[in-house]
Amino acid sequence: MKKSMLITGGARSGKSALAERYAVAATGRAIYISTADAHDDEMAARIAAHQARRGPEWSHIHAPFALADKLRQSDGGHPRLVDCLTLWLSNLILSDGDWRAETATLLDALADQTAPVIFVTNEVGAGIVPENRLARDFRDAAGWVNQTIAQACDEVVFCVAGYPMKVKSNDHSL
Amino acid sequence: MKKSMLITGGARSGKSALAERYAVAATGRAIYISTADAHDDEMAARIAAHQARRGPEWSHIHAPFALADKLRQSDGGHPRLVDCLTLWLSNLILSDGDWRAETATLLDALADQTAPVIFVTNEVGAGIVPENRLARDFRDAAGWVNQTIAQACDEVVFCVAGYPMKVKSNDHSL
Amino acid sequence: MKKSMLITGGARSGKSALAERYAVAATGRAIYISTADAHDDEMAARIAAHQARRGPEWSHIHAPFALADKLRQSDGGHPRLVDCLTLWLSNLILSDGDWRAETATLLDALADQTAPVIFVTNEVGAGIVPENRLARDFRDAAGWVNQTIAQACDEVVFCVAGYPMKVKSNDHSL
Repeated sequence: MKKSMLITGGARSGKSALAERYAVAATGRAIYISTADAHDDEMAARIAAHQARRGPEWSHIHAPFALADKLRQSDGGHPRLVDCLTLWLSNLILSDGDWRAETATLLDALADQTAPVIFVTNEVGAGIVPENRLARDFRDAAGWVNQTIAQACDEVVFCVAGYPMKVKSNDHSL
Repeated sequence: MKKSMLITGGARSGKSALAERYAVAATGRAIYISTADAHDDEMAARIAAHQARRGPEWSHIHAPFALADKLRQSDGGHPRLVDCLTLWLSNLILSDGDWRAETATLLDALADQTAPVIFVTNEVGAGIVPENRLARDFRDAAGWVNQTIAQACDEVVFCVAGYPMKVKSNDHSL
Repeated sequence: MKKSMLITGGARSGKSALAERYAVAATGRAIYISTADAHDDEMAARIAAHQARRGPEWSHIHAPFALADKLRQSDGGHPRLVDCLTLWLSNLILSDGDWRAETATLLDALADQTAPVIFVTNEVGAGIVPENRLARDFRDAAGWVNQTIAQACDEVVFCVAGYPMKVKSNDHSL
Protein backbone atom coordinates (compact mmCIF):
# COMPACT_ATOMS: atom_id res chain seq x y z
CA MET A 1 0.00 0.00 0.00
CA LYS A 2 1.11 3.55 -0.71
CA LYS A 3 2.18 5.57 2.27
CA SER A 4 0.45 8.82 1.36
CA MET A 5 -2.22 10.01 -1.02
CA LEU A 6 -3.86 13.33 -1.90
CA ILE A 7 -7.42 13.36 -3.23
CA THR A 8 -8.42 16.70 -4.73
CA GLY A 9 -11.48 17.87 -6.66
CA GLY A 10 -14.37 20.32 -6.64
CA ALA A 11 -17.12 20.50 -4.03
CA ARG A 12 -19.36 17.41 -4.00
CA SER A 13 -17.19 15.57 -6.49
CA GLY A 14 -17.13 12.45 -4.30
CA LYS A 15 -13.69 12.98 -2.74
CA SER A 16 -14.61 11.95 0.83
CA ALA A 17 -16.51 8.80 -0.16
CA LEU A 18 -13.60 7.78 -2.38
CA ALA A 19 -11.08 8.49 0.38
CA GLU A 20 -13.11 6.38 2.82
CA ARG A 21 -13.12 3.41 0.46
CA TYR A 22 -9.33 3.66 0.00
CA ALA A 23 -8.69 4.06 3.75
CA VAL A 24 -10.74 1.04 4.83
CA ALA A 25 -9.54 -1.19 1.96
CA ALA A 26 -6.08 -1.65 3.49
CA THR A 27 -6.75 -3.13 6.93
CA GLY A 28 -10.54 -3.10 7.27
CA ARG A 29 -10.32 -0.32 9.85
CA ALA A 30 -9.36 3.34 9.62
CA ILE A 31 -9.07 6.56 11.61
CA TYR A 32 -10.98 9.61 10.50
CA ILE A 33 -9.22 12.90 11.29
CA SER A 34 -11.72 15.71 10.85
CA THR A 35 -10.41 19.25 10.48
CA ALA A 36 -13.88 20.77 10.41
CA ASP A 37 -14.63 23.33 13.09
CA ALA A 38 -18.38 23.03 13.66
CA HIS A 39 -18.78 26.79 14.08
CA ASP A 40 -22.23 27.05 12.51
CA ASP A 41 -25.31 24.92 11.82
CA GLU A 42 -24.59 24.44 8.13
CA MET A 43 -21.13 23.06 8.87
CA ALA A 44 -22.46 20.89 11.72
CA ALA A 45 -25.05 19.41 9.34
CA ARG A 46 -22.37 18.70 6.75
CA ILE A 47 -20.19 16.95 9.37
CA ALA A 48 -23.17 14.90 10.57
CA ALA A 49 -23.99 13.82 7.00
CA HIS A 50 -20.38 12.70 6.47
CA GLN A 51 -20.32 10.78 9.79
CA ALA A 52 -23.63 9.05 9.03
CA ARG A 53 -21.96 7.41 6.04
CA ARG A 54 -19.18 5.86 8.15
CA GLY A 55 -19.59 2.57 10.05
CA PRO A 56 -18.11 0.96 13.17
CA GLU A 57 -14.81 0.26 11.38
CA TRP A 58 -13.98 3.94 11.94
CA SER A 59 -12.57 5.75 14.94
CA HIS A 60 -12.56 9.54 15.01
CA ILE A 61 -10.10 12.31 15.88
CA HIS A 62 -10.92 16.00 15.86
CA ALA A 63 -8.06 18.19 14.60
CA PRO A 64 -9.13 21.65 13.46
CA PHE A 65 -5.60 22.92 14.23
CA ALA A 66 -2.85 20.61 15.55
CA LEU A 67 -2.90 18.28 12.57
CA ALA A 68 0.80 17.33 12.65
CA ASP A 69 0.56 16.32 16.33
CA LYS A 70 -2.55 14.22 15.69
CA LEU A 71 -0.80 12.41 12.84
CA ARG A 72 2.17 11.57 15.07
CA GLN A 73 -0.08 10.42 17.95
CA SER A 74 -2.22 8.19 15.70
CA ASP A 75 0.65 6.59 13.77
CA GLY A 76 1.61 2.91 13.85
CA GLY A 77 -1.70 1.23 13.17
CA HIS A 78 -4.56 1.82 10.77
CA PRO A 79 -4.67 4.30 7.88
CA ARG A 80 -5.65 7.88 8.68
CA LEU A 81 -8.00 9.95 6.52
CA VAL A 82 -7.51 13.71 6.89
CA ASP A 83 -10.70 15.48 5.76
CA CYS A 84 -9.83 18.09 4.70
CA LEU A 85 -6.79 20.31 4.15
CA THR A 86 -8.88 23.22 2.87
CA LEU A 87 -10.82 23.53 6.15
CA TRP A 88 -7.60 23.15 8.14
CA LEU A 89 -6.05 26.01 6.13
CA SER A 90 -9.20 28.07 6.59
CA ASN A 91 -9.07 27.52 10.38
CA LEU A 92 -5.42 28.66 10.43
CA ILE A 93 -6.06 31.77 8.34
CA LEU A 94 -9.17 32.79 10.30
CA SER A 95 -7.21 32.51 13.56
CA ASP A 96 -4.17 34.39 12.15
CA GLY A 97 -2.05 31.23 12.29
CA ASP A 98 1.19 30.90 10.31
CA TRP A 99 -0.08 28.48 7.66
CA ARG A 100 3.26 28.25 5.83
CA ALA A 101 5.05 27.22 9.03
CA GLU A 102 2.22 24.84 9.95
CA THR A 103 2.45 23.25 6.48
CA ALA A 104 6.21 22.72 6.98
CA THR A 105 5.47 21.09 10.36
CA LEU A 106 2.87 18.89 8.71
CA LEU A 107 5.39 17.81 6.04
CA ASP A 108 7.88 16.84 8.78
CA ALA A 109 5.25 14.72 10.51
CA LEU A 110 4.19 13.15 7.21
CA ALA A 111 7.78 12.13 6.45
CA ASP A 112 7.95 10.22 9.76
CA GLN A 113 4.69 8.25 9.35
CA THR A 114 4.76 4.46 9.19
CA ALA A 115 1.00 3.93 8.59
CA PRO A 116 -0.76 5.38 5.52
CA VAL A 117 -2.24 8.88 5.37
CA ILE A 118 -4.90 9.96 2.88
CA PHE A 119 -5.54 13.68 2.54
CA VAL A 120 -8.70 15.17 1.05
CA THR A 121 -8.49 18.70 -0.32
CA ASN A 122 -10.47 21.04 -2.58
CA GLU A 123 -9.90 22.68 -5.93
CA VAL A 124 -10.94 26.30 -5.36
CA GLY A 125 -9.09 28.10 -8.17
CA ALA A 126 -10.95 27.16 -11.35
CA GLY A 127 -13.65 29.81 -11.21
CA ILE A 128 -13.63 33.49 -12.06
CA VAL A 129 -11.09 35.57 -10.07
CA PRO A 130 -12.96 36.56 -6.86
CA GLU A 131 -13.60 40.30 -6.40
CA ASN A 132 -12.90 39.86 -2.68
CA ARG A 133 -9.19 40.24 -1.78
CA LEU A 134 -9.44 37.77 1.11
CA ALA A 135 -10.94 35.15 -1.22
CA ARG A 136 -8.09 35.70 -3.71
CA ASP A 137 -5.51 35.30 -0.95
CA PHE A 138 -7.26 32.17 0.29
CA ARG A 139 -7.30 30.50 -3.10
CA ASP A 140 -3.61 31.33 -3.56
CA ALA A 141 -2.83 29.77 -0.17
CA ALA A 142 -5.03 26.72 -0.89
CA GLY A 143 -3.29 26.16 -4.23
CA TRP A 144 0.12 26.48 -2.57
CA VAL A 145 -0.81 23.97 0.18
CA ASN A 146 -2.19 21.53 -2.42
CA GLN A 147 1.02 21.71 -4.48
CA THR A 148 3.22 21.32 -1.40
CA ILE A 149 1.37 18.30 -0.03
CA ALA A 150 1.04 16.75 -3.51
CA GLN A 151 4.81 16.88 -3.93
CA ALA A 152 5.24 14.92 -0.67
CA CYS A 153 2.55 12.33 -1.46
CA ASP A 154 3.11 9.04 -3.29
CA GLU A 155 -0.17 9.35 -5.16
CA VAL A 156 -2.43 12.22 -6.24
CA VAL A 157 -5.88 11.82 -7.80
CA PHE A 158 -8.34 14.39 -9.16
CA CYS A 159 -11.93 13.41 -8.43
CA VAL A 160 -14.65 14.10 -11.05
CA ALA A 161 -18.29 13.03 -10.59
CA GLY A 162 -17.24 10.39 -8.04
CA TYR A 163 -14.41 8.84 -10.06
CA PRO A 164 -10.64 9.31 -9.59
CA MET A 165 -8.37 10.52 -12.39
CA LYS A 166 -4.66 9.78 -11.88
CA VAL A 167 -2.53 12.91 -11.42
CA LYS A 168 0.64 11.45 -9.90
CA SER A 169 1.68 7.93 -9.00
CA ASN A 170 4.96 6.77 -7.51
CA ASP A 171 6.14 3.24 -7.99
CA HIS A 172 4.32 1.18 -5.33
CA SER A 173 0.79 -0.10 -5.27
CA LEU A 174 -2.01 1.23 -3.04
CA MET B 1 -21.79 1.72 -29.10
CA LYS B 2 -22.03 2.58 -25.42
CA LYS B 3 -25.53 2.98 -24.11
CA SER B 4 -24.94 6.06 -21.97
CA MET B 5 -22.33 8.75 -21.53
CA LEU B 6 -21.82 11.78 -19.30
CA ILE B 7 -19.77 14.72 -20.55
CA THR B 8 -18.81 17.17 -17.82
CA GLY B 9 -16.54 20.21 -17.71
CA GLY B 10 -16.43 23.94 -17.04
CA ALA B 11 -18.35 26.60 -18.95
CA ARG B 12 -17.23 26.94 -22.59
CA SER B 13 -14.96 23.93 -22.36
CA GLY B 14 -16.40 22.44 -25.57
CA LYS B 15 -18.77 19.93 -23.96
CA SER B 16 -21.74 20.49 -26.28
CA ALA B 17 -19.72 20.39 -29.51
CA LEU B 18 -18.04 17.19 -28.35
CA ALA B 19 -21.38 15.63 -27.37
CA GLU B 20 -22.81 16.49 -30.80
CA ARG B 21 -19.94 14.76 -32.57
CA TYR B 22 -20.39 11.62 -30.45
CA ALA B 23 -24.18 11.61 -30.93
CA VAL B 24 -24.13 11.90 -34.71
CA ALA B 25 -21.20 9.48 -35.15
CA ALA B 26 -23.32 6.43 -34.35
CA THR B 27 -26.13 6.54 -36.92
CA GLY B 28 -25.63 9.80 -38.79
CA ARG B 29 -28.70 11.27 -37.13
CA ALA B 30 -29.48 12.33 -33.58
CA ILE B 31 -32.11 13.90 -31.34
CA TYR B 32 -31.27 17.01 -29.37
CA ILE B 33 -33.10 17.27 -26.03
CA SER B 34 -32.73 20.80 -24.75
CA THR B 35 -33.40 21.48 -21.06
CA ALA B 36 -32.87 25.23 -21.41
CA ASP B 37 -35.78 27.42 -20.41
CA ALA B 38 -35.40 30.53 -22.56
CA HIS B 39 -36.46 32.84 -19.74
CA ASP B 40 -34.25 35.78 -20.70
CA ASP B 41 -32.47 37.26 -23.71
CA GLU B 42 -29.03 36.05 -22.69
CA MET B 43 -30.23 32.45 -22.45
CA ALA B 44 -32.17 32.75 -25.71
CA ALA B 45 -29.00 33.97 -27.46
CA ARG B 46 -27.01 31.08 -26.03
CA ILE B 47 -29.63 28.57 -27.23
CA ALA B 48 -29.65 30.16 -30.69
CA ALA B 49 -25.85 29.96 -30.93
CA HIS B 50 -25.95 26.27 -30.02
CA GLN B 51 -28.71 25.53 -32.56
CA ALA B 52 -26.88 27.39 -35.34
CA ARG B 53 -24.08 24.83 -35.05
CA ARG B 54 -26.39 21.88 -35.64
CA GLY B 55 -27.43 20.69 -39.11
CA PRO B 56 -30.39 18.87 -40.71
CA GLU B 57 -29.30 15.55 -39.19
CA TRP B 58 -30.78 16.78 -35.90
CA SER B 59 -34.34 16.76 -34.61
CA HIS B 60 -35.20 18.70 -31.49
CA ILE B 61 -37.17 18.10 -28.28
CA HIS B 62 -37.74 20.70 -25.57
CA ALA B 63 -37.63 19.28 -22.04
CA PRO B 64 -37.02 21.87 -19.32
CA PHE B 65 -38.80 19.58 -16.81
CA ALA B 66 -40.18 16.15 -17.86
CA LEU B 67 -36.85 14.74 -18.94
CA ALA B 68 -37.54 11.10 -18.01
CA ASP B 69 -40.79 11.10 -20.04
CA LYS B 70 -39.05 12.61 -23.07
CA LEU B 71 -36.33 9.95 -22.91
CA ARG B 72 -38.95 7.18 -22.86
CA GLN B 73 -40.93 8.76 -25.72
CA SER B 74 -37.87 9.25 -27.93
CA ASP B 75 -36.33 5.81 -27.35
CA GLY B 76 -35.86 3.10 -29.97
CA GLY B 77 -34.10 4.98 -32.74
CA HIS B 78 -31.32 7.53 -32.89
CA PRO B 79 -29.06 8.66 -30.04
CA ARG B 80 -30.36 11.39 -27.76
CA LEU B 81 -28.21 14.28 -26.52
CA VAL B 82 -29.46 15.84 -23.26
CA ASP B 83 -28.05 19.37 -22.97
CA CYS B 84 -27.78 19.89 -20.08
CA LEU B 85 -28.39 18.37 -16.63
CA THR B 86 -27.33 21.54 -14.82
CA LEU B 87 -30.08 23.64 -16.42
CA TRP B 88 -32.62 20.86 -15.80
CA LEU B 89 -31.63 20.84 -12.12
CA SER B 90 -31.80 24.63 -12.03
CA ASN B 91 -35.33 24.55 -13.53
CA LEU B 92 -36.42 22.03 -10.88
CA ILE B 93 -34.95 23.99 -7.98
CA LEU B 94 -36.33 27.35 -9.16
CA SER B 95 -39.82 25.81 -9.41
CA ASP B 96 -39.52 24.06 -6.01
CA GLY B 97 -39.48 20.64 -7.67
CA ASP B 98 -38.23 17.54 -5.85
CA TRP B 99 -34.93 17.15 -7.69
CA ARG B 100 -33.88 14.04 -5.77
CA ALA B 101 -37.10 12.25 -6.72
CA GLU B 102 -36.83 13.53 -10.31
CA THR B 103 -33.27 12.20 -10.52
CA ALA B 104 -34.46 8.77 -9.33
CA THR B 105 -37.19 8.86 -12.01
CA LEU B 106 -34.56 9.80 -14.59
CA LEU B 107 -32.35 6.87 -13.52
CA ASP B 108 -35.32 4.48 -13.94
CA ALA B 109 -35.95 5.79 -17.45
CA LEU B 110 -32.25 5.59 -18.30
CA ALA B 111 -32.09 1.93 -17.24
CA ASP B 112 -34.89 1.10 -19.71
CA GLN B 113 -33.36 2.83 -22.76
CA THR B 114 -32.43 0.82 -25.84
CA ALA B 115 -30.92 3.69 -27.88
CA PRO B 116 -27.92 5.67 -26.61
CA VAL B 117 -28.18 8.72 -24.36
CA ILE B 118 -25.44 11.34 -23.98
CA PHE B 119 -25.74 13.77 -21.08
CA VAL B 120 -23.94 17.11 -20.91
CA THR B 121 -23.42 18.64 -17.47
CA ASN B 122 -21.31 21.33 -15.78
CA GLU B 123 -18.59 21.39 -13.17
CA VAL B 124 -19.65 24.20 -10.82
CA GLY B 125 -17.77 23.30 -7.62
CA ALA B 126 -14.13 24.13 -8.36
CA GLY B 127 -14.22 27.82 -7.48
CA ILE B 128 -14.18 29.62 -4.14
CA VAL B 129 -17.07 28.67 -1.79
CA PRO B 130 -19.91 31.06 -2.78
CA GLU B 131 -20.99 33.56 -0.11
CA ASN B 132 -24.59 33.05 -1.22
CA ARG B 133 -26.35 30.16 0.58
CA LEU B 134 -28.54 29.36 -2.44
CA ALA B 135 -25.44 29.09 -4.64
CA ARG B 136 -23.81 26.72 -2.13
CA ASP B 137 -26.93 24.55 -2.04
CA PHE B 138 -27.07 24.55 -5.84
CA ARG B 139 -23.49 23.43 -6.26
CA ASP B 140 -24.03 20.67 -3.71
CA ALA B 141 -27.11 19.49 -5.62
CA ALA B 142 -25.31 19.74 -8.99
CA GLY B 143 -22.40 17.68 -7.67
CA TRP B 144 -24.80 15.07 -6.29
CA VAL B 145 -26.69 14.83 -9.61
CA ASN B 146 -23.41 14.52 -11.52
CA GLN B 147 -22.18 11.70 -9.27
CA THR B 148 -25.53 9.89 -9.45
CA ILE B 149 -25.80 10.03 -13.24
CA ALA B 150 -22.08 9.23 -13.66
CA GLN B 151 -22.54 6.04 -11.66
CA ALA B 152 -25.33 4.94 -14.04
CA CYS B 153 -23.46 5.82 -17.24
CA ASP B 154 -21.14 3.52 -19.18
CA GLU B 155 -18.69 6.31 -19.91
CA VAL B 156 -17.78 9.62 -18.29
CA VAL B 157 -15.44 12.22 -19.78
CA PHE B 158 -14.13 15.51 -18.41
CA CYS B 159 -13.83 18.16 -21.13
CA VAL B 160 -10.88 20.61 -21.07
CA ALA B 161 -10.28 23.21 -23.81
CA GLY B 162 -12.39 21.17 -26.25
CA TYR B 163 -10.78 17.78 -25.61
CA PRO B 164 -12.14 14.84 -23.59
CA MET B 165 -10.24 13.29 -20.69
CA LYS B 166 -11.38 9.80 -19.72
CA VAL B 167 -12.96 9.62 -16.24
CA LYS B 168 -14.81 6.28 -16.40
CA SER B 169 -15.16 3.65 -19.09
CA ASN B 170 -17.07 0.38 -18.92
CA ASP B 171 -16.18 -2.51 -21.13
CA HIS B 172 -17.87 -1.76 -24.48
CA SER B 173 -16.90 0.61 -27.25
CA LEU B 174 -18.70 3.85 -28.12
CA MET C 1 10.52 18.84 -29.45
CA LYS C 2 6.88 19.80 -29.93
CA LYS C 3 6.29 23.11 -31.60
CA SER C 4 3.49 24.35 -29.39
CA MET C 5 1.92 23.53 -26.07
CA LEU C 6 -0.96 24.85 -23.97
CA ILE C 7 -0.82 24.49 -20.17
CA THR C 8 -4.15 25.17 -18.48
CA GLY C 9 -5.39 24.81 -14.91
CA GLY C 10 -6.83 26.68 -11.95
CA ALA C 11 -5.14 29.53 -10.09
CA ARG C 12 -2.00 28.43 -8.20
CA SER C 13 -2.08 24.96 -9.72
CA GLY C 14 1.61 25.17 -10.68
CA LYS C 15 1.13 26.02 -14.37
CA SER C 16 3.88 28.65 -14.63
CA ALA C 17 6.52 26.59 -12.81
CA LEU C 18 5.70 23.62 -15.02
CA ALA C 19 5.85 25.75 -18.17
CA GLU C 20 9.23 27.12 -17.13
CA ARG C 21 10.67 23.63 -16.69
CA TYR C 22 9.41 22.59 -20.15
CA ALA C 23 10.68 25.78 -21.81
CA VAL C 24 14.22 25.56 -20.43
CA ALA C 25 14.51 21.78 -20.94
CA ALA C 26 14.84 22.09 -24.73
CA THR C 27 17.88 24.35 -25.20
CA GLY C 28 18.87 25.42 -21.69
CA ARG C 29 17.67 28.94 -22.39
CA ALA C 30 14.23 30.45 -22.92
CA ILE C 31 12.36 33.70 -23.50
CA TYR C 32 9.64 34.75 -21.09
CA ILE C 33 6.81 36.72 -22.71
CA SER C 34 4.75 38.31 -19.96
CA THR C 35 1.27 39.56 -20.80
CA ALA C 36 0.70 40.99 -17.32
CA ASP C 37 -0.06 44.70 -17.18
CA ALA C 38 1.29 45.81 -13.79
CA HIS C 39 -1.63 48.17 -13.20
CA ASP C 40 -1.83 47.72 -9.43
CA ASP C 41 0.33 46.71 -6.47
CA GLU C 42 -1.16 43.22 -6.14
CA MET C 43 -0.37 42.43 -9.76
CA ALA C 44 3.11 43.94 -9.49
CA ALA C 45 3.80 41.72 -6.46
CA ARG C 46 2.61 38.66 -8.34
CA ILE C 47 4.85 39.48 -11.32
CA ALA C 48 7.82 40.02 -9.00
CA ALA C 49 7.23 36.67 -7.29
CA HIS C 50 7.17 34.91 -10.68
CA GLN C 51 10.34 36.67 -11.86
CA ALA C 52 12.20 35.83 -8.63
CA ARG C 53 11.84 32.14 -9.52
CA ARG C 54 13.55 32.54 -12.91
CA GLY C 55 17.32 32.52 -13.36
CA PRO C 56 19.88 33.98 -15.82
CA GLU C 57 18.87 31.47 -18.50
CA TRP C 58 15.81 33.64 -19.15
CA SER C 59 15.38 36.77 -21.21
CA HIS C 60 12.17 38.78 -20.90
CA ILE C 61 9.68 40.43 -23.26
CA HIS C 62 6.69 42.48 -22.17
CA ALA C 63 3.58 41.95 -24.33
CA PRO C 64 0.33 43.00 -22.68
CA PHE C 65 -1.18 43.56 -26.16
CA ALA C 66 0.83 42.90 -29.35
CA LEU C 67 1.41 39.24 -28.65
CA ALA C 68 1.45 38.04 -32.28
CA ASP C 69 4.09 40.64 -33.20
CA LYS C 70 6.27 39.68 -30.23
CA LEU C 71 6.09 36.01 -31.24
CA ARG C 72 7.20 36.82 -34.79
CA GLN C 73 10.03 39.10 -33.57
CA SER C 74 11.35 36.53 -31.08
CA ASP C 75 11.18 33.51 -33.40
CA GLY C 76 14.14 31.47 -34.65
CA GLY C 77 15.99 30.73 -31.45
CA HIS C 78 15.00 29.64 -27.98
CA PRO C 79 11.54 28.52 -26.80
CA ARG C 80 9.08 31.22 -25.81
CA LEU C 81 6.82 30.97 -22.75
CA VAL C 82 3.67 33.12 -23.01
CA ASP C 83 2.34 33.75 -19.47
CA CYS C 84 -0.58 34.03 -19.78
CA LEU C 85 -3.42 34.07 -22.33
CA THR C 86 -6.03 34.94 -19.71
CA LEU C 87 -4.33 38.22 -18.79
CA TRP C 88 -3.78 39.02 -22.48
CA LEU C 89 -7.51 38.48 -23.10
CA SER C 90 -8.35 40.58 -20.06
CA ASN C 91 -6.13 43.42 -21.33
CA LEU C 92 -7.88 43.30 -24.73
CA ILE C 93 -11.38 43.29 -23.24
CA LEU C 94 -10.65 46.09 -20.75
CA SER C 95 -9.31 48.26 -23.60
CA ASP C 96 -12.24 47.41 -25.92
CA GLY C 97 -9.95 45.48 -28.26
CA ASP C 98 -11.31 42.97 -30.79
CA TRP C 99 -10.22 39.80 -29.02
CA ARG C 100 -11.64 37.47 -31.68
CA ALA C 101 -9.64 39.22 -34.41
CA GLU C 102 -6.55 39.34 -32.18
CA THR C 103 -6.87 35.61 -31.55
CA ALA C 104 -7.02 34.96 -35.31
CA THR C 105 -3.87 37.10 -35.73
CA LEU C 106 -2.20 35.13 -32.97
CA LEU C 107 -3.09 31.84 -34.69
CA ASP C 108 -1.53 33.11 -37.93
CA ALA C 109 1.69 34.01 -36.13
CA LEU C 110 1.71 30.67 -34.30
CA ALA C 111 1.44 28.75 -37.58
CA ASP C 112 4.58 30.51 -38.87
CA GLN C 113 6.79 29.83 -35.82
CA THR C 114 9.92 27.74 -36.14
CA ALA C 115 10.94 27.76 -32.45
CA PRO C 116 8.64 26.30 -29.76
CA VAL C 117 5.91 28.28 -28.01
CA ILE C 118 4.40 27.31 -24.65
CA PHE C 119 1.20 29.07 -23.61
CA VAL C 120 -0.06 29.25 -20.04
CA THR C 121 -3.77 29.89 -19.54
CA ASN C 122 -6.41 29.63 -16.79
CA GLU C 123 -9.51 27.55 -16.21
CA VAL C 124 -12.09 30.10 -15.07
CA GLY C 125 -15.35 28.30 -15.88
CA ALA C 126 -15.63 25.55 -13.24
CA GLY C 127 -17.23 27.60 -10.47
CA ILE C 128 -20.81 28.78 -9.94
CA VAL C 129 -22.19 30.96 -12.77
CA PRO C 130 -21.11 34.52 -11.82
CA GLU C 131 -23.93 36.97 -11.03
CA ASN C 132 -21.97 39.69 -12.82
CA ARG C 133 -22.70 39.87 -16.59
CA LEU C 134 -19.17 41.05 -17.40
CA ALA C 135 -17.71 38.08 -15.51
CA ARG C 136 -19.98 35.69 -17.45
CA ASP C 137 -18.91 37.25 -20.76
CA PHE C 138 -15.26 37.03 -19.73
CA ARG C 139 -15.42 33.38 -18.84
CA ASP C 140 -17.15 32.64 -22.15
CA ALA C 141 -14.41 34.50 -24.01
CA ALA C 142 -11.66 32.80 -21.99
CA GLY C 143 -13.13 29.37 -22.71
CA TRP C 144 -13.37 30.20 -26.41
CA VAL C 145 -9.74 31.40 -26.54
CA ASN C 146 -8.56 28.28 -24.69
CA GLN C 147 -10.40 25.99 -27.12
CA THR C 148 -9.12 27.89 -30.15
CA ILE C 149 -5.48 27.86 -29.05
CA ALA C 150 -5.72 24.24 -27.85
CA GLN C 151 -6.86 23.18 -31.32
CA ALA C 152 -3.75 24.80 -32.84
CA CYS C 153 -1.30 23.36 -30.29
CA ASP C 154 0.52 20.03 -30.53
CA GLU C 155 0.09 19.31 -26.85
CA VAL C 156 -2.36 20.37 -24.14
CA VAL C 157 -2.00 19.58 -20.44
CA PHE C 158 -4.28 20.29 -17.48
CA CYS C 159 -2.31 21.14 -14.35
CA VAL C 160 -3.54 19.88 -10.93
CA ALA C 161 -1.60 20.47 -7.70
CA GLY C 162 1.61 21.01 -9.67
CA TYR C 163 1.36 17.95 -11.91
CA PRO C 164 0.35 17.79 -15.61
CA MET C 165 -2.51 15.62 -16.84
CA LYS C 166 -2.44 14.88 -20.57
CA VAL C 167 -5.38 16.44 -22.48
CA LYS C 168 -4.11 16.29 -26.08
CA SER C 169 -0.92 15.00 -27.64
CA ASN C 170 0.05 14.98 -31.29
CA ASP C 171 2.57 12.54 -32.62
CA HIS C 172 5.97 14.07 -31.81
CA SER C 173 7.87 14.23 -28.55
CA LEU C 174 8.47 17.35 -26.45
